[in-house]
Amino acid sequence: MMHEPAALDQMFHALSDRSRRGMVDRLGHGPASVSELAEPLSMALPTVMKHLAVLERSGLVRSEKSGRVRTYRLQRDALAEMERWLVAHKAGWNRAFDRLEQFLADEQPE
Amino acid sequence: MMHEPAALDQMFHALSDRSRRGMVDRLGHGPASVSELAEPLSMALPTVMKHLAVLERSGLVRSEKSGRVRTYRLQRDALAEMERWLVAHKAGWNRAFDRLEQFLADEQPE
Repeated sequence: MMHEPAALDQMFHALSDRSRRGMVDRLGHGPASVSELAEPLSMALPTVMKHLAVLERSGLVRSEKSGRVRTYRLQRDALAEMERWLVAHKAGWNRAFDRLEQFLADEQPE
Repeated sequence: MMHEPAALDQMFHALSDRSRRGMVDRLGHGPASVSELAEPLSMALPTVMKHLAVLERSGLVRSEKSGRVRTYRLQRDALAEMERWLVAHKAGWNRAFDRLEQFLADEQPE
């Protein structure tokens, strides 16, 4: 199951690296091969492939080999669970601060 | 600057662990001490403190010591940048798939 906490672990981990976020950014414009993904990063192919393996294990991207070229594409809905988590917790965040503000307002001298 | 990519690295990393996400969850209900955070986790205090240090370095939580008790609280707006990143990229995700669907529709025989 992609949406279990272990998957969330892997997705958050996958995005904790600037180069991997850059690859996700690139793939947002359409599928790309390893060398297309490597080009703007001035990074050795094996390093790029390691990053792509982390992204693929997390479920955020998927790859397909056709002949000698492996093409990566974003995996639909993969960000949804992370976004849900963040949105749910931002609500908690805001509630906590609203309560604090209310408390401080109540403490104000008349 | 909290919103630079390095900070995003640390925030995504901080949330890549289920126990740390649990602590953020707990702190969404209000500030808590180390032992209050440790209690539901059946985790040794030093382990809890390590997790809290990761969360605090990322900017997601902040702590304050009063007497012998250190209290942790969520840091307002800290999730906003992560959420912005996810929302922006989800849009790219969806555009990529809309283009694919359009392409497939155009390829349909009449």
